[in-house]
Amino acid sequence: MREFATIILAAGKGTRMKSDLHKVLHPIAGRPMLDHLMASAAELAPAKTVVVVGSGREQLEAALGDRAETCLQEPQLGTGHAVQQAQASLEGFEGDVLVLYGDVPFVRAQTMGMMLDRLHAEDKPAVVVLGFEPADPLQYGRVVADADGRITKMVEHKDASDAERACRLCNSGLMAARAADMFDLLARVGNDNSQGEYYLVDVVNVANADGRHSAVVVTDDSDEVAGINSRAELARAEAQWQELKREEAMTNGASLRAPETVFFSWDTEIGRDVTVEPNVVFGPGAKVADGATIRAFSHIEGAEIGPGCEVGPFARLRPGAVMEKGSKVGNFVEMKKAVLGEGAKANHLTYLGDAEVGPGANIGAGTITCNYDGYFKYKTVIGPRAFIGSNSALIAPVKIGADAIVAAGSAVSRDVADGELRMVRGEQLVKPGWADRFHDAMKKKKAEKAK
Amino acid sequence: MREFATIILAAGKGTRMKSDLHKVLHPIAGRPMLDHLMASAAELAPAKTVVVVGSGREQLEAALGDRAETCLQEPQLGTGHAVQQAQASLEGFEGDVLVLYGDVPFVRAQTMGMMLDRLHAEDKPAVVVLGFEPADPLQYGRVVADADGRITKMVEHKDASDAERACRLCNSGLMAARAADMFDLLARVGNDNSQGEYYLVDVVNVANADGRHSAVVVTDDSDEVAGINSRAELARAEAQWQELKREEAMTNGASLRAPETVFFSWDTEIGRDVTVEPNVVFGPGAKVADGATIRAFSHIEGAEIGPGCEVGPFARLRPGAVMEKGSKVGNFVEMKKAVLGEGAKANHLTYLGDAEVGPGANIGAGTITCNYDGYFKYKTVIGPRAFIGSNSALIAPVKIGADAIVAAGSAVSRDVADGELRMVRGEQLVKPGWADRFHDAMKKKKAEKAK
Amino acid sequence: MREFATIILAAGKGTRMKSDLHKVLHPIAGRPMLDHLMASAAELAPAKTVVVVGSGREQLEAALGDRAETCLQEPQLGTGHAVQQAQASLEGFEGDVLVLYGDVPFVRAQTMGMMLDRLHAEDKPAVVVLGFEPADPLQYGRVVADADGRITKMVEHKDASDAERACRLCNSGLMAARAADMFDLLARVGNDNSQGEYYLVDVVNVANADGRHSAVVVTDDSDEVAGINSRAELARAEAQWQELKREEAMTNGASLRAPETVFFSWDTEIGRDVTVEPNVVFGPGAKVADGATIRAFSHIEGAEIGPGCEVGPFARLRPGAVMEKGSKVGNFVEMKKAVLGEGAKANHLTYLGDAEVGPGANIGAGTITCNYDGYFKYKTVIGPRAFIGSNSALIAPVKIGADAIVAAGSAVSRDVADGELRMVRGEQLVKPGWADRFHDAMKKKKAEKAK
Repeated sequence: MREFATIILAAGKGTRMKSDLHKVLHPIAGRPMLDHLMASAAELAPAKTVVVVGSGREQLEAALGDRAETCLQEPQLGTGHAVQQAQASLEGFEGDVLVLYGDVPFVRAQTMGMMLDRLHAEDKPAVVVLGFEPADPLQYGRVVADADGRITKMVEHKDASDAERACRLCNSGLMAARAADMFDLLARVGNDNSQGEYYLVDVVNVANADGRHSAVVVTDDSDEVAGINSRAELARAEAQWQELKREEAMTNGASLRAPETVFFSWDTEIGRDVTVEPNVVFGPGAKVADGATIRAFSHIEGAEIGPGCEVGPFARLRPGAVMEKGSKVGNFVEMKKAVLGEGAKANHLTYLGDAEVGPGANIGAGTITCNYDGYFKYKTVIGPRAFIGSNSALIAPVKIGADAIVAAGSAVSRDVADGELRMVRGEQLVKPGWADRFHDAMKKKKAEKAK
Repeated sequence: MREFATIILAAGKGTRMKSDLHKVLHPIAGRPMLDHLMASAAELAPAKTVVVVGSGREQLEAALGDRAETCLQEPQLGTGHAVQQAQASLEGFEGDVLVLYGDVPFVRAQTMGMMLDRLHAEDKPAVVVLGFEPADPLQYGRVVADADGRITKMVEHKDASDAERACRLCNSGLMAARAADMFDLLARVGNDNSQGEYYLVDVVNVANADGRHSAVVVTDDSDEVAGINSRAELARAEAQWQELKREEAMTNGASLRAPETVFFSWDTEIGRDVTVEPNVVFGPGAKVADGATIRAFSHIEGAEIGPGCEVGPFARLRPGAVMEKGSKVGNFVEMKKAVLGEGAKANHLTYLGDAEVGPGANIGAGTITCNYDGYFKYKTVIGPRAFIGSNSALIAPVKIGADAIVAAGSAVSRDVADGELRMVRGEQLVKPGWADRFHDAMKKKKAEKAK
Repeated sequence: MREFATIILAAGKGTRMKSDLHKVLHPIAGRPMLDHLMASAAELAPAKTVVVVGSGREQLEAALGDRAETCLQEPQLGTGHAVQQAQASLEGFEGDVLVLYGDVPFVRAQTMGMMLDRLHAEDKPAVVVLGFEPADPLQYGRVVADADGRITKMVEHKDASDAERACRLCNSGLMAARAADMFDLLARVGNDNSQGEYYLVDVVNVANADGRHSAVVVTDDSDEVAGINSRAELARAEAQWQELKREEAMTNGASLRAPETVFFSWDTEIGRDVTVEPNVVFGPGAKVADGATIRAFSHIEGAEIGPGCEVGPFARLRPGAVMEKGSKVGNFVEMKKAVLGEGAKANHLTYLGDAEVGPGANIGAGTITCNYDGYFKYKTVIGPRAFIGSNSALIAPVKIGADAIVAAGSAVSRDVADGELRMVRGEQLVKPGWADRFHDAMKKKKAEKAK
């Protein structure tokens, strides 16, 4: 493959999304659809990426950072016109250009590579078009080509003859050409059509008029060129992505009891002999080591789960949660920026935030690390084998020593030494018979109110 | 449309439901199926609604209140006999009647209107029948009609000729007629059939014998006349309803990452640019404003979620929960009859019941409003920007002032003034080495027990 | 049916599972697939069960206990060779043998019985083969038989003629024969084939050569002979099992609002007029009595739920949880080895472990039974109509009397008498203006840090 640049068209208004968020920034599997596309292109290491934008430019620039250059298409006069806007950004660039669409996010690197390679095949086509064969080709423009993939005609559906419509090879819109060719051809594309737009596909005709030919390469997976124009299509793309990811996880040796209820993120890593019960949601940044069990109703993002760990049901691991080997996080427990040491347990109704828990420690039900004073966050450090009694509040910054015990119901604001017992307990007020009298009074009051 | 009354047949025993609850009171999307039907009819403002009941009359009357009159069919001698029971209730009524079925809940108002309009078309049919064209018409009675919808023959499936069976137009059972016609025709319907029942459909034949004709109007959505006779059919109706509602939410600009895991209620209102993660359940009375995010595993009923709010994961909003603009309710948090002011946060393991939380307040992890003494409920009022330390119990009635701080682990039973710190803390008991000695003793005991 | 023994083949390596767990021990609906199969066979009361194992023998023996004898196939020279390994274990056994496969778990008892019965039909076949008619018979060996089920030919797919392939009757691999016949025939099966293996199916040919015939019986449900070779197939088997169970629950009178989101265990018992909201997971050992409501996001295992009880949303019942009539467990509540008396309530954020709660008691939000000291578990007993104030810690062993009241925020370590009020409360420290000064100082500090 020669040096190439990608031109990603993202100037469409995305009206059907009904969103203030730019269409190509809507996430699939926790990642903007534009990033899915750019990640695939990145496998081929493009020399440059130019994103053609319209409205929402600021959003796109903020999202892209220095990963791509943007250029503005204003007004928007068609796909050919859009690609032309990238010309200034590619001034002096002598490689190929690959035209992609920000809302067609699942094109694989191998498909892109196939297009770019075809450009330099012996017959040296001027333009390479990506064709696909959808189950229902109804509305798409057709590509008429010979057995070698040399295009004899591109035809809009509405202009197609019956014979041409019978042909199921359709134009995806994706295109590759040498940069010089692309911009030279585009300069001669006209807008003499009912929409008054400059169509990218017309470069094929201009090349033809020059006596040069174009070629089509055909994807074997028509799903990869599906465009996303509505929230419903976004949801379908998500579903399609999840299905592939679930199959991959199972093939690699994870048991998903009900795969259709497990939602992965784009970067989820799942080991071998991992069991995932129904209804588990992974946000970005989750790693699950071999032999771990993720029980039902767990929500995991930015967390590392070590070998043999058990999570949930009803566990919530937030970014920075690290569970070391064989540790256990149970129901209604939240971890955030917290390390749970080997074999340590936090089984019930607990919040561990900004904390380090030593190996073998036991965090009782209802334990809260009080890590925030409204302005800053503070750290709780719990030593190995320490035992935190139920319903305790650990008021950070605080350190609980090795083998130390905090008695149930204690609010601990000062460090506890190794092997020490700390008990913070109020006075026991005993009022015999008081409850009986209270019940009597209240029942009377209730009866009166009911009158 | 002329004045009309609906007659809703609901006398069937519903044996296949195996339920003590009357069949037509079983809910779909959180609302009894009868109410779905009545809500559609209500769009056309019927002058009167008569519900024909059999067993379970008390349940139905309690559910209907003054929304409809009931009349008893006892014994149950067929659909024609059932409609006849409504005659007394419609004494003197001079409009039309529309016969509906309580277990066919999804008939649209537009379809009902089409039936009633047809009754007053130029050719003035005596009876209007609603026809439908199911994918599989096997067991249904057929309607043989000419191109103008004039019925030439109604025929039971078992009596149909091959040619008649080839016709796919089936009888839904729904019918409209002028009230006078309906009861006059019914009076002449016989029960000379194998079941010994009076069939409503026979009014068409009686009219015919009078030299009058009947007409069919055909629904374009055969799903709307699907009857519900078992819990499995109930579940399918629910699924069908949910699918439509999810599509509507997405079309209006909400992102449902996994639409098939989101369950709406009949009255859920969802704004634009709302994000709903997988596994969210809405009960009745939920409103979600623009730009809000509902994270996974949230359960929301009778709650208002303001613009830009964030809910969950694992949040539970109960009736009377009101989240103002930009406020946040996090994991394992329950709200009931509680207002969370603008930008306020209750992020973890909290119960807010009968409470008002001021704007910008921060409710620490493990905070409980103690709103109940076993007899009455009391209110907690928390001022703007107040900070409630973790694991606190606010014993209502109690008021926490503006900018006040409650220290972690405090059980607060008296009001806290603006800008005040309140700390309720027991005595710190420090026993150096005690834990080490305890561990030794217990290990010994455990070893002995293991012997 | 005569006396019979089952021979279960389970020596396959299960490589595609990518698991350290033996393939036949992977669970479906919370029970190892081998156990599903053995439970079906058990309905016919086999005299003996022999499991032929290869690698992972220890795992299988541990799982089987004394329910079956294992025998080792090493090396593994085909299915015929595998069955031969069981010969020693069946020394002297004069009944029939039924050959099953550990990874074909859903064969019904009635199908097994049909095979065994056929063996003793008038024509006395030497061997009975279970045939099935899959939707897509592509890769399976075919069974060519006459109208009486007498097999004329068994043919591998690759060796089949077009006419034979057109026949859709396939060989499931399951087989029955008199024990003496089986081992006699097997002794004469050769391994003259491309794999060099001894195939069980060849006993049909050997019998044929003896002038004896074999018969085929055909299952009417080709799903029951589906084999499980990968995690994806395991998930499909789970899905298929769940679908049947959900239908059964609905048929018996339970409402599943979204059946596809409810996951049962193999032994779940669900009563009549039970309502199950979306997203409920049952582990083994759950019983739900009539009229109970299981709200969304509940996780239930080893628990008994009495008539009219309400569970969830977000409830977690663990083994030993018993809810008596009309009791209620609400959100973020966990029960383990705990009895909740008639009409008692634990509505919010509570852990009840090793506890007995009397009828009519009210357990406030945030109550924790502190049942564990790191070494042993202790019991909490709460009397009838007792009221446990919110955020209390009950430090077991401890007893709260009838009608007693524990004030909110109390850590109770000593018994509370009947009708007594117990309040454990720290000193109230009131610092007027302190919070205001704190806010000022912190805002300054934050501003400095931001510089």
